Amino acid sequence: MSTPHAYARQHSERSLNQLFDFIRIPSVSTLPERAADVRRAAEWLAANLSQAGFERVEVVPTSGHPIVYAEWMGAGPSAPTVLVYGHYDVQPADMADCWDSNPFEPILRDGFIYARGASDDKGQVFAQVKAAEALLATGGAPVNLKFIVEGEEEVSSLHLGDFVRQNAERLKADVCVISDTGMPSIDQPAICYSLRGLAYMELHVWGPAHDLHSGSYGGSVHNPAQALAEIIAALHKPDGSVSVPGFYDDVLPLSPEERAAINQRGMTEEAWRRETGADQPWGEAGYTIEERIGARPTLEINGMVSGFYGDGAKTVLPARALAKISCRLVANQNPQRIYELVRDYIAQLTPPTVRSELRLLHTGAPAYTDINTPAMRAAVVAYQKQWGASPIFIRGGGSIPIVADFQTQLGLPVVLLGFGLTGDGAHGPNERFSVEMFHRGIATAIQFFQEISQS
Amino acid sequence: MSTPHAYARQHSERSLNQLFDFIRIPSVSTLPERAADVRRAAEWLAANLSQAGFERVEVVPTSGHPIVYAEWMGAGPSAPTVLVYGHYDVQPADMADCWDSNPFEPILRDGFIYARGASDDKGQVFAQVKAAEALLATGGAPVNLKFIVEGEEEVSSLHLGDFVRQNAERLKADVCVISDTGMPSIDQPAICYSLRGLAYMELHVWGPAHDLHSGSYGGSVHNPAQALAEIIAALHKPDGSVSVPGFYDDVLPLSPEERAAINQRGMTEEAWRRETGADQPWGEAGYTIEERIGARPTLEINGMVSGFYGDGAKTVLPARALAKISCRLVANQNPQRIYELVRDYIAQLTPPTVRSELRLLHTGAPAYTDINTPAMRAAVVAYQKQWGASPIFIRGGGSIPIVADFQTQLGLPVVLLGFGLTGDGAHGPNERFSVEMFHRGIATAIQFFQEISQS
Repeated sequence: MSTPHAYARQHSERSLNQLFDFIRIPSVSTLPERAADVRRAAEWLAANLSQAGFERVEVVPTSGHPIVYAEWMGAGPSAPTVLVYGHYDVQPADMADCWDSNPFEPILRDGFIYARGASDDKGQVFAQVKAAEALLATGGAPVNLKFIVEGEEEVSSLHLGDFVRQNAERLKADVCVISDTGMPSIDQPAICYSLRGLAYMELHVWGPAHDLHSGSYGGSVHNPAQALAEIIAALHKPDGSVSVPGFYDDVLPLSPEERAAINQRGMTEEAWRRETGADQPWGEAGYTIEERIGARPTLEINGMVSGFYGDGAKTVLPARALAKISCRLVANQNPQRIYELVRDYIAQLTPPTVRSELRLLHTGAPAYTDINTPAMRAAVVAYQKQWGASPIFIRGGGSIPIVADFQTQLGLPVVLLGFGLTGDGAHGPNERFSVEMFHRGIATAIQFFQEISQS
Repeated sequence: MSTPHAYARQHSERSLNQLFDFIRIPSVSTLPERAADVRRAAEWLAANLSQAGFERVEVVPTSGHPIVYAEWMGAGPSAPTVLVYGHYDVQPADMADCWDSNPFEPILRDGFIYARGASDDKGQVFAQVKAAEALLATGGAPVNLKFIVEGEEEVSSLHLGDFVRQNAERLKADVCVISDTGMPSIDQPAICYSLRGLAYMELHVWGPAHDLHSGSYGGSVHNPAQALAEIIAALHKPDGSVSVPGFYDDVLPLSPEERAAINQRGMTEEAWRRETGADQPWGEAGYTIEERIGARPTLEINGMVSGFYGDGAKTVLPARALAKISCRLVANQNPQRIYELVRDYIAQLTPPTVRSELRLLHTGAPAYTDINTPAMRAAVVAYQKQWGASPIFIRGGGSIPIVADFQTQLGLPVVLLGFGLTGDGAHGPNERFSVEMFHRGIATAIQFFQEISQS
């Protein structure tokens, strides 16, 4: 019988082809018109998990998108149980956002798979599936496996929290592992130990009852696009900090040791420039790029729209304006509280000449993972064996809303066993995933399961 | 033989049906995909002018949309010649902008025709056509008639100025009459004697080279949507005035007499509230609603767009943002100069963390018409006879870019013989045109041609 690592290598091409099929399903969770595709991706993944050797595979309906659950308990009651979490839904992607190729037709170029979801998170979660398959196909895994792969991570795991609470017994495990983070470079393995939380909001501003002729009324009506701009402009101070009163109140100060650790291996201005293509950094005065991304909360405009914005000209005075606004939050900040602070401040900023409303769309709690658990040590060894180098610990700027739930509801230590690269372009155009990271990911996951069984 | 007025009454239903057919053609000049419809509207109008009895009718191609030209010189060389100008193109209209019915399928409700272009300007220019027909069908007009109806008024008459310069001889006339303005109420006839000019611009702001993950980079990149908002917010002072240095330099101060005249019959706050549906007026401190609209220049946001603005959430940090910005200008202001002032100020406001560019899309000069010409007296009498009341003189907030060209290139006195109502909702949703104003318009135009022949 082959070893799991040999099995994975022998089947690497098939695994890649399967990943391509997985990616081709445009499972965009936020778009109502993609609901059938989201379901199709869940069913595709469930079928693949069955083929991989899982004993019990389910597509669990929710009032939103389904959860895929798979279990293999063949290691027996004395062996540890690992809960693997990932998501099969993806962010929206449109050629108009400057993709070089169809976001849902993966192509290989220079060792990367270019497609929406390639890195976030289809490629990473599928590396876990293929690692499990390699173990199950070569004599069985040394640990019991529970896979939970959801379809709503990109909409803040709307229904997963309830599922976790209602199925605490079924989801019992010794450790939770999640492959949905990135490292700055393929040459240096890195483990993300901190994630930001999220409060995603929508700001509406209303002016006149309907669009008006900008000549017949212009100058006498507070233009809601202008009013929205005035409100948005007032949300930051000139020093780059967020001006919402109380916004930073719950942020724990960074110790000099933490700051030193963050900055030692942090993103250089050169790497930042290469990855963003922007001219020069911006942000909260007194903090480095790495601190701004990993250790400080933000308030970001994700989009806005008002009036006429097509080619040509329309001399309209618009009736309304909209902005999507989200805050990334750090440890000890409460998303609901932050929403309330922003809401109250915007109410205060809104002049009597327009009306405004800030709606909360969804939230996710910030999370830390303990770097001193046996599971984390198993992860360190797994990376070491595959990379020949010890992983560093880094903070991530992104959010995985369910991590806090796994920690608090299930009392599980969480390990973020990421296989992405920070330059993968998740959420943007031309998202990509390194083929080598995919295969190293499979090997690292196999290694992790082996290490954890001995810890 | 019937009189022209009797002819118009006898054919009122047919005229209305023809107007409906004219309106059904979605001749939106700013949308490239509507070019064939714009052409179709030109051809429809040319055919109608031929049927109306014009001797020479042409659809004149330009490098943009065609100009419809029609001539009837049967009054002979000793009779005056009237140049009638109007436009057959319309503003964009979309059900999504809160129309209660299809903007290109006119419906009658409470005495109004609801449709895009009903008032601006198809209904008004068609009243002129039907007045000419009534005269030509009942023994001929007492004046020579030259109709020039363009398809680019809503895009600032891009090619009409050249046409006017190149055809100065052919367009020779004694007076120019334009039906493309409104009066506050059907009970009180009003003649608009002042129009604002226009500088229509597009502001682009670029940040990162492509959309980014708002978690992975948020807080370290100057968000272009935010930067655009910051720039827009800085374009007005808290007192409602435009903060662009030099913006008001060329504005002639209003004399106390002018202010008194403007405000005597000006829009009341109650009428403003009814027409706009907004909560309370806004604008330049120290000026009344009517002065802000008719006598002061403005800077308006006609639209803006950035990032994700659909239903749901996308945690994206957008790469770019766009705003459509237009300035309405008053007498003595130069649109090109205003563009340069705004451009330079925005360049100065733009921080080094983003790039911006302000592009000029088109311009129109502000215009005054002399209220002491024989043509204006003929207009006053024409309104008096149809309304039983003397018209008042008002200032319009809108722009008819070609008026200044007619005055300077052709040396013509211009009369704005408007049949619209200020509450018609031009450029907005549910644009409408009063059926009674349409028929009164035909009668007033007949009367005007008769009066001017005797002046």
